[in-house]
Amino acid sequence: MEKSRTTNYRGNSVIIRLEMKVDRMAFGEVVTSLAAVGGDITAIDIISNGGGVTVRDITVNMPDSVTATDLTDALKKTAGVRVVHISDRTFLLHLGGKISVIPKTPIQNRDDLSRVYTPDVARVSMAIYEDPNKAFSLTIKRNMVAVISDGSAVLGLGNIGPRAAMPVMEGKAMLFKQLGDVDAFPICLETQDTEEIITTIKHISTAFGGINLEDISSPRCFEIEERLRKELDIPVFHDDQHGTAVVVYAGLINALKLAKKSIHDVRVVVAGIGAAGIAVSKILLAAGVKDLVGVDVEGILIRTQTYANPMKQWYAEHTNPFLREGSLQDALMGADVFVGVSAGGILKREHVQSMAEDPIIFAMANPTPEIIPDLIEDIVAVVATGRSDYPNQINNVLCFPGMFRGALDCRASDINEEMKLAAAEAIASIVTADELSKQYIIPSVFNDQVVKRVRDRVVQAAIATGIARRIPREFR
Amino acid sequence: MEKSRTTNYRGNSVIIRLEMKVDRMAFGEVVTSLAAVGGDITAIDIISNGGGVTVRDITVNMPDSVTATDLTDALKKTAGVRVVHISDRTFLLHLGGKISVIPKTPIQNRDDLSRVYTPDVARVSMAIYEDPNKAFSLTIKRNMVAVISDGSAVLGLGNIGPRAAMPVMEGKAMLFKQLGDVDAFPICLETQDTEEIITTIKHISTAFGGINLEDISSPRCFEIEERLRKELDIPVFHDDQHGTAVVVYAGLINALKLAKKSIHDVRVVVAGIGAAGIAVSKILLAAGVKDLVGVDVEGILIRTQTYANPMKQWYAEHTNPFLREGSLQDALMGADVFVGVSAGGILKREHVQSMAEDPIIFAMANPTPEIIPDLIEDIVAVVATGRSDYPNQINNVLCFPGMFRGALDCRASDINEEMKLAAAEAIASIVTADELSKQYIIPSVFNDQVVKRVRDRVVQAAIATGIARRIPREFR
Repeated sequence: MEKSRTTNYRGNSVIIRLEMKVDRMAFGEVVTSLAAVGGDITAIDIISNGGGVTVRDITVNMPDSVTATDLTDALKKTAGVRVVHISDRTFLLHLGGKISVIPKTPIQNRDDLSRVYTPDVARVSMAIYEDPNKAFSLTIKRNMVAVISDGSAVLGLGNIGPRAAMPVMEGKAMLFKQLGDVDAFPICLETQDTEEIITTIKHISTAFGGINLEDISSPRCFEIEERLRKELDIPVFHDDQHGTAVVVYAGLINALKLAKKSIHDVRVVVAGIGAAGIAVSKILLAAGVKDLVGVDVEGILIRTQTYANPMKQWYAEHTNPFLREGSLQDALMGADVFVGVSAGGILKREHVQSMAEDPIIFAMANPTPEIIPDLIEDIVAVVATGRSDYPNQINNVLCFPGMFRGALDCRASDINEEMKLAAAEAIASIVTADELSKQYIIPSVFNDQVVKRVRDRVVQAAIATGIARRIPREFR
Repeated sequence: MEKSRTTNYRGNSVIIRLEMKVDRMAFGEVVTSLAAVGGDITAIDIISNGGGVTVRDITVNMPDSVTATDLTDALKKTAGVRVVHISDRTFLLHLGGKISVIPKTPIQNRDDLSRVYTPDVARVSMAIYEDPNKAFSLTIKRNMVAVISDGSAVLGLGNIGPRAAMPVMEGKAMLFKQLGDVDAFPICLETQDTEEIITTIKHISTAFGGINLEDISSPRCFEIEERLRKELDIPVFHDDQHGTAVVVYAGLINALKLAKKSIHDVRVVVAGIGAAGIAVSKILLAAGVKDLVGVDVEGILIRTQTYANPMKQWYAEHTNPFLREGSLQDALMGADVFVGVSAGGILKREHVQSMAEDPIIFAMANPTPEIIPDLIEDIVAVVATGRSDYPNQINNVLCFPGMFRGALDCRASDINEEMKLAAAEAIASIVTADELSKQYIIPSVFNDQVVKRVRDRVVQAAIATGIARRIPREFR
């Protein structure tokens, strides 16, 4: 839990709020004390003055070797100075939350007020009352997605609950807007009961044109998504499952080009049969993979066994056609592709050496991958991870903004398998034949073509499968 | 339901989308046809060109005597021209909804991304996990209010359901932001069951620092508000009740100054014992009114009778100390103040003539007041309505932005009676002794002192009653 320590961060800049007795004129001593431990004051803001006391916010740069505690320890030795609090940039960015709800037009006078509110708004309400589909054009439903979590499986942090999940969902809402121009609002639920979650989401669905489920633990996430997809007429998308699946498949499309192998011929081993592992497996089956083998902590899943978990039972029945048995090591012998959504460090170099020629490795355990890329760089066709500090980052951010941009633009009633395949192909297509290399199979999340390309292909797939309720002008 | 007709509006400007055959070059004829019926083209936007067809949006000003149908009828006679659709400014303002969710800071690079989202957001999540109160500073909970309706009693339109209620709640969210810098998000519920509403609101309360209930029909609104106030640790405020009550009392404070009467001595007759009538009565009792008489369609409420409706039973037991009996007319004889939240036209000039000297009339039925002010202007001290086209508009917009601004700023756990009284006094205090007149007892919603004054008094009242969980700097 080193990550969770909020006060002793290293490097970067921090902001320290100090209370100083004016009569002591201690500020020179503050500068000296901080400099002695490596802190460099870059800005000063006076917060208040009076009663013989001055309160100041000082911004202090510190090298990686210095911790915030070093700074406060130094200040504690300075007489007449009290540290009120200390914040780093990340925490400051979170003060008061990261998103804001703003009017699209200002209300400047009585005329504006009467149009956006009473009495004239009544005409708009009655138009929707007479034709409820008008909600898709005359309310925020046209462009609003709910980002919903129950806080049960947040990042790699586990069941930290709804309040602690909020910063993650707010961050996601920011990305929706910044990358996809999709308005998104975070809802963290004060319940982890499957039925209550389903009912609550149905009750609040009016305002939204789509639902992005996030960080809900397995196996509840399957039933919640499945039921909501059936019972709502707007898209419901569990990003931890399908976002990951789409981007893995996008990466695999390009990796297979480098390895000069066909998706129909390869053997793919998926390690970790949880929410993401199952979704990845489903998209790969839909994309044409025939020899797919799932491996769990108990070994290879096989249809000759029965499983208590219904998802695993389903999995065993729909994969492993050659009835392979045994461990991860057995599964990998001669395999072409490894997809890990399991645990850090489970893959060894000798496993990779036992695979077919030009193996493809997706090691996506978070935060430590199944194997560190450096250890196998020389013996693989491609290695990808979930991390930004290695090449080929498999990042859901490549999928969800364009996916929902497309779904909203054509008022899709669902996000179906065809739309997911289309999104993956769109992401893969950004990397041209010239650009494609072992270090570059997947575009950056800051590549500004991604959202547009994904959106267009998603809209086409929705129209082709008959679930678009509006045909955008350019597709008519 | 004349109000609900969405196509045949008069006056103002409309935007007409036309499809024209290019070979006919019919645009001159369009101009002529529209001019013949009084329409004046003020702007043209070309939407598309091609395939021998051009699509244009033309903005047309029309005098009050002309309807949109007059314009389309004229265009129908023009060969080669098809009207695709016609919109007025109000509908155009509603296209795609009226609010947007935006990031407070842009995400421009990998460093930004890692601070607002993974991996660095995990530190913020864990800080909240360790101390859940940090949600009030590190998430949108600090400044976010939910505007929640079930669509059961929207404006004067009745039970039009959640989708049709959305434009009203979006308008309210705009006002929250524009006037109070309060972020607000509209939630319209797909249920009208009391228990389900309570449970749903509790489940989604994580993101919010306050709940504004809106347009929920009586008597369900009482139980929903009461239960949520008990079961949540954030303020819950049913604006139709308490917003109205606060602004009526604010108006009464100043009206009594003009009539030179004391609140302790006057007899107040409240007509219409629904949600607003009960809330108005409660605040007036709390403010010191002793002789309060409630009148319903069945006449004066009196404790010698029993009532099936528990709210009316409560009302009868707590009002009418002199056991008056009979009709509205009986109640008004010799009374000082009439407060109507009932039905249009029920008050007659002769009723007002039977009241005590310098009577005060609040005729707030919507859209038609209990009596038209012009009919009694000469015989009253003050007359106020809910309408913007007469002086002295009793408008909830005067209350809710400052009320929630104050409640959020001091992290109030509730909005109590003291805060409501303080808000009313603050609103009344904006009108100075010099300014106070029969035509001006209450400030305009565009008076920029209102929110600040209400906020300050509300914070003081919350601190004084021990429900503030944070003391803003200026009150320390």
